[in-house]
Amino acid sequence: MEYITGGICAPQGFKGNGVHCGFYKDENKKDLGIIVSERLCAAAAVYTTNKVYGAPITVNQKHLADGHAQVIICNSGIANTCAPNGPEIAEDTCRLAARALSKAAGNQAAGGSGAADYIVGASNVKALSITPENVIVASTGVIGEALTMKPFEKGIGSLVSNLGDADENSQAVAGAIMTTDTVCKEVAVSFHIGGKECRLGAIAKGSGMIHPNMATMLSFITGDVAISPEMLQKALSYDVDDTYNQISVDGDTSTNDMAVVMANGLAGNREITGEGADYDKFCEALRAVTKTMAMKIAGDGEGASKLIICKVKGADTKANARLISKSVISSNLTKAAIFGKDANWGRIICAVGYTPGDFDVSDIDICLGSEAGHIQVCKKSAMVEFSEEKALEILGADEITIDIDMNDGDQTAEAYGCDLTYEYVTINASYRS
Amino acid sequence: MEYITGGICAPQGFKGNGVHCGFYKDENKKDLGIIVSERLCAAAAVYTTNKVYGAPITVNQKHLADGHAQVIICNSGIANTCAPNGPEIAEDTCRLAARALSKAAGNQAAGGSGAADYIVGASNVKALSITPENVIVASTGVIGEALTMKPFEKGIGSLVSNLGDADENSQAVAGAIMTTDTVCKEVAVSFHIGGKECRLGAIAKGSGMIHPNMATMLSFITGDVAISPEMLQKALSYDVDDTYNQISVDGDTSTNDMAVVMANGLAGNREITGEGADYDKFCEALRAVTKTMAMKIAGDGEGASKLIICKVKGADTKANARLISKSVISSNLTKAAIFGKDANWGRIICAVGYTPGDFDVSDIDICLGSEAGHIQVCKKSAMVEFSEEKALEILGADEITIDIDMNDGDQTAEAYGCDLTYEYVTINASYRS
Repeated sequence: MEYITGGICAPQGFKGNGVHCGFYKDENKKDLGIIVSERLCAAAAVYTTNKVYGAPITVNQKHLADGHAQVIICNSGIANTCAPNGPEIAEDTCRLAARALSKAAGNQAAGGSGAADYIVGASNVKALSITPENVIVASTGVIGEALTMKPFEKGIGSLVSNLGDADENSQAVAGAIMTTDTVCKEVAVSFHIGGKECRLGAIAKGSGMIHPNMATMLSFITGDVAISPEMLQKALSYDVDDTYNQISVDGDTSTNDMAVVMANGLAGNREITGEGADYDKFCEALRAVTKTMAMKIAGDGEGASKLIICKVKGADTKANARLISKSVISSNLTKAAIFGKDANWGRIICAVGYTPGDFDVSDIDICLGSEAGHIQVCKKSAMVEFSEEKALEILGADEITIDIDMNDGDQTAEAYGCDLTYEYVTINASYRS
Repeated sequence: MEYITGGICAPQGFKGNGVHCGFYKDENKKDLGIIVSERLCAAAAVYTTNKVYGAPITVNQKHLADGHAQVIICNSGIANTCAPNGPEIAEDTCRLAARALSKAAGNQAAGGSGAADYIVGASNVKALSITPENVIVASTGVIGEALTMKPFEKGIGSLVSNLGDADENSQAVAGAIMTTDTVCKEVAVSFHIGGKECRLGAIAKGSGMIHPNMATMLSFITGDVAISPEMLQKALSYDVDDTYNQISVDGDTSTNDMAVVMANGLAGNREITGEGADYDKFCEALRAVTKTMAMKIAGDGEGASKLIICKVKGADTKANARLISKSVISSNLTKAAIFGKDANWGRIICAVGYTPGDFDVSDIDICLGSEAGHIQVCKKSAMVEFSEEKALEILGADEITIDIDMNDGDQTAEAYGCDLTYEYVTINASYRS
């Protein structure tokens, strides 16, 4: 498996685009994005567990009931949550996208020069009639504000007519879902199944209100692997428990979290319909993609100056390993200490201790590490002499690892967070203005 | 019932003192405190649920097994958690206090002039021999640092010889348990049971690492009520679920949380040994005391500029009402928005939605209020037009109320928190230095 460029356009048969349509005042801020597959995909998704959730989620649950999709359309700026006529607007957005794409494809078939040329690829008659039910919709932004169809209607034309599969196209979609994100988040990998080259690509956004409990804010994954919808859902659901669900920026689980994966089968591998070596290879590639995105999301947490990775080993159960690592990276006190380069391990062991569940805390070792070195700060749940200067040097890096050995079993897990900074407060004291 | 002055010295037969003994470098910072009752008290306590907990808790569980205590000794600066020889030091501290008090009482009986005069009150022969098992010990401060008996030994003499029951004495104990607290927290009430005047007094500390899950950081409550240890424990355990356990400053549950109540019976009421009108009056007074302290702790949260009170009504169960209100005041995003005077109710309903448990979220009303007025910002879980200027005015006050009506039943609860500020980050980026 190797990392490649191209993001969600890296797999065969996927195109994307992003434009400004008016959800933000700044005309340079892209706020409407689209991802289109040449042909119908097996598709799977996981959503937030927040009981208050965005209208797009209600619509997607219906649209994905048959395990297939072909298009993702997404906006930033307004979340379409607790908004008037939310579900109607989400459905109308799917209809708008389906109609515009089918029309563009029709124009092309009739000799037009629309950029959506692959839509009428010889192998893809279905695409001529994209149905609203095969469109996934996503929104991110302010909760509770009203939105109308106007910006969607304004933007859809240029969005569809300038579809492409260049690196810039993936970046344009990734840019269109950014809110307080400071960097564009994308990744792609290439791997082989049954001698066929397969590719997976992903984009994500997520900066605040990040404490996913099913998926992160928004993450869209594309693939050209042939895999059944059932196995795709199984792989995604299993994967997120170790990746997206192990991120926390601020402990707040969003109302709009959503991770969607679409696989169109163009790689030509024998379709994966059950467990086995092929499925394992797919899961491995999926893990590489989601873990990379998880770290990018955590490292770009609102106001963050450092990525914090907590690695737990020696736990008695997998569930406890996950909970402990997530508890540590979620601790405001630990996050503020890391921001201040303060090796205050008492806060780390405190967060281990208040993790829900029953486990032994009598023999915990804690090490801090970064590119500047590693240092043990706690042994057998007690203090150990260490050099404060060395600790300061280690904590000066941009990526800090907290290694915790519970000495209580052989289970491991990782979680991904960021430090708590002045900037986080600044951003969130005036998010709506 | 009326509020009175005197804190923990308000009830009959209690004296206190606080001195500097050396846990802090600053000689003006009191860091050793003591509370002594003229006679043996019924006593009850609740502790942190953190699996990593301070050595004092281990010791107190033993000392309170018989439901009685007479003395509380407490230090700030070092938490005696994950510290070498922690339990031995906690036991030695109890022995030191018992010996010093018995000696002072002995001197007095032999014609000495020790300030601990009441210890030899005619009615109180037992006090001449205070045993270590009747001493409660508490520590708060940095986790994982070693401590020795030296500061205790240095401070115990002046601590005991200057005991008193003036208002300043309660303040001295309250001052001795402060860490990053900015104000001294005490309260006292007077009420009647069976025609006898009874009093309850309390002090507390708690500024960071505040998300109690049994009791708050440290709270000591004194009373002259006659009540059995069993009913005292029952009253305290019931009470904290609605008061101390409903506070959050930063979501971090401390390793040293402890609330202790001692009642010496000097009020002369018929001992409360079961439920009934007398018990109810006691519980009402206890609630007045703990609720006041809970709000003081939340309002003085690390870096806080505002107290946030979330009142939930119309919930389907008491448990859900408690969880919902605590979820809202724990939300970093809501806390930062309140700091920025931003009426971003989307974050409030988001926090309601991710509250664990199963309940209806389709008909939620949200109002914001303060001394500057009240305003509805959400109706039936959807946006409602409101004046941003009025909202700004309301949120400019020091005490903000978030009223949430779930319209789903008749259960209510409150929770107490504070805003998230730059100052919180400053304090916690360098707590150890």
